[in-house]
Amino acid sequence: MKVLCVNAGSSSLKFQLYDIPAEISIISGYVEKIGAKDSFYTIKHEGKKNEVKKLIPDHTEAVKIMLEELLNYGVVKDLSEIRAVGHRAVHGGEKYTKSVVITDEVLKDMKEFGKFAPLHLPGNIAGVKAMQKALPDAVQVAVFDTAFHHTIPKVQYMYPVPMEWYKKYGVRKYGFHGTSHKYITETMQKKLGKENINLIICHVGSGASITAVKDGKSYDTTMGLTPLDGLMMGTRSGSIDPSIIKYMIDEAGMSYDAVDDALNKASGLKGVCGFNDNRDVEKAIADGDENARLALDMYVDRIDRYIAEYYLELGGDVDAIVFTAGVLENGAETRESIIDGLAPLGIKINKEVNDAIASFKEITSGIITAEDSTVPVYVEPTNEEVMIVRDAYKLAKQ
Amino acid sequence: MKVLCVNAGSSSLKFQLYDIPAEISIISGYVEKIGAKDSFYTIKHEGKKNEVKKLIPDHTEAVKIMLEELLNYGVVKDLSEIRAVGHRAVHGGEKYTKSVVITDEVLKDMKEFGKFAPLHLPGNIAGVKAMQKALPDAVQVAVFDTAFHHTIPKVQYMYPVPMEWYKKYGVRKYGFHGTSHKYITETMQKKLGKENINLIICHVGSGASITAVKDGKSYDTTMGLTPLDGLMMGTRSGSIDPSIIKYMIDEAGMSYDAVDDALNKASGLKGVCGFNDNRDVEKAIADGDENARLALDMYVDRIDRYIAEYYLELGGDVDAIVFTAGVLENGAETRESIIDGLAPLGIKINKEVNDAIASFKEITSGIITAEDSTVPVYVEPTNEEVMIVRDAYKLAKQ
Repeated sequence: MKVLCVNAGSSSLKFQLYDIPAEISIISGYVEKIGAKDSFYTIKHEGKKNEVKKLIPDHTEAVKIMLEELLNYGVVKDLSEIRAVGHRAVHGGEKYTKSVVITDEVLKDMKEFGKFAPLHLPGNIAGVKAMQKALPDAVQVAVFDTAFHHTIPKVQYMYPVPMEWYKKYGVRKYGFHGTSHKYITETMQKKLGKENINLIICHVGSGASITAVKDGKSYDTTMGLTPLDGLMMGTRSGSIDPSIIKYMIDEAGMSYDAVDDALNKASGLKGVCGFNDNRDVEKAIADGDENARLALDMYVDRIDRYIAEYYLELGGDVDAIVFTAGVLENGAETRESIIDGLAPLGIKINKEVNDAIASFKEITSGIITAEDSTVPVYVEPTNEEVMIVRDAYKLAKQ
Repeated sequence: MKVLCVNAGSSSLKFQLYDIPAEISIISGYVEKIGAKDSFYTIKHEGKKNEVKKLIPDHTEAVKIMLEELLNYGVVKDLSEIRAVGHRAVHGGEKYTKSVVITDEVLKDMKEFGKFAPLHLPGNIAGVKAMQKALPDAVQVAVFDTAFHHTIPKVQYMYPVPMEWYKKYGVRKYGFHGTSHKYITETMQKKLGKENINLIICHVGSGASITAVKDGKSYDTTMGLTPLDGLMMGTRSGSIDPSIIKYMIDEAGMSYDAVDDALNKASGLKGVCGFNDNRDVEKAIADGDENARLALDMYVDRIDRYIAEYYLELGGDVDAIVFTAGVLENGAETRESIIDGLAPLGIKINKEVNDAIASFKEITSGIITAEDSTVPVYVEPTNEEVMIVRDAYKLAKQ
């Protein structure tokens, strides 16, 4: 069965067509800068990459172009071959604890929960609507990025704020990157031959979150009500003194929207040293840039702190720490710095293996700690797309 | 020499007269609800407590009454006997790394740095001015609550926000409760007969902060730009997803001042269960109140997390964990819960000793961990007043 994965962002749309249950990726594409003058898209097929510059005013047009390309490349003869579409849905609130077929009610709820992730909402909804129109016979499935975290206990998901904020407005920790954390959990369960595993999963890309997995279930995670919480990221501050917001409003005369925008888009690595891509930061460090050094040290420090917290939360009983997503699948130096900081817990690097692993190299996964490390650290590439099409396939079969 | 300690809050003024260098407290007083209709003050002298209801419109009047009572009680025959006054100054910015004699420039700076702690500023300044007027010949000394933390390295004191916010507006971690953390550090240095000690000091009262001390110096602390950061407290949220602020403004139609106010005064234990005093929370738990249970579990959880972080930061080389200030000097159950959570680090309670210690009992300090605990946990009462008069005395002698 051919199943499509769709991940619509605020001004982007990723898609990937799979042959299921074999889980073979047939073709993938990425539409960027939707609505801007310099919008374009890239198609990857049989190891080749093709970039096309084209004015793409909205998500409906992006979906249309994408489906045309599937026909152009001959990967489907007729669009009706696509029997299911899995959509990455950013927020399922407290209601959606697993993936569901998208009905009118689900779409309404997606709009409602969009208040927790306003940047992602319009693209999310537009992606679903465009796909419903283009493929009316396919089963449309929502795969919620928050769903895996529904098992987090109350002590961890509640914030110490007025109870009314939770009861009336839903202020709590929801967590994100759930699809990735779930994928890694399932992969590690197979790898270790154990259902009830305890893991600390570090998903560090341009967005970043760490999840504590207890008995195979999400037990805590660093992102919260929104994806701003927790770790220092490429452009997001993560957790800071919340009073900084009022202080900047009062002292610098900024609006609260401007402060929020800065915390999401001009903070993190970018805020401290000007670069938001770890590769650029590492280059700048090599050139003697002190702020780049500071930025990376802060970044690593915050990852180590959460690992220490979750080590404690899991009672010191951790089967593995797993590094995944762009930064940690590739950044050998960053991985080494993180592991160095974990020495007090008895965690030790295997430098040779660590240096050998990257997504662009022959070896893309492995154990990067020494044999006598108290906890093994794995590098394991994530694959949110395959999780999304798996769920879409399961629901389409029912 | 007689030295006075003055601690002026937004609507309160505490004072304590010491005989120095013997460090004997002669008399103490507490003026409350300054400016309100039901203002009053309490004097403690020779084991007796006396409460007086009186309309006290401002801090100048509070200082006047206080000095009159010193004469009334006969602890001084003439106010000129008071040779130095140590003032608790909430914020010294990056400029003041130790206590100083208050000059016009210092007073100007105190006003400037008051922007970081706007609630405390007016009382602080009024206290100094009133004292300067009343005791023109005494040496007036500012003891900054932030000074002890000036040794915190940049990786820890910088926030991952735009660099301009630091350079232009001073946004960084300053830390608070420095006088208390310094007192405990000096006490432990004497106790352990070691200058270069590494400590994790948990100062938990209605306000709360944890400090990592490395080689006898502050290395990190949980409070930040303002006292709102870090731990969950009696009425303060501590660290939360900063996006919650914008979310509540947008969704609940609150002003940012109202949100900030709620985070400072209606959050923490009070926000979750309605009680902000740990004794009330414990009573409610005994009565089966589920929210009180949740609140205390969250509260303890957050203390344990920071201890784990600082354990890692100190490279696992920790001479002692120290519990101090109201909640931890008295709350045997809370102390036990915290230590239970530290089991993965090999820290174990000595229940018998723990249950025996409280500020209102015969035993007020001691080691509450078992002999084979990897790190000993001490209960040690803090004494900010004695630190303040020590510094005032030193500077008055020069």
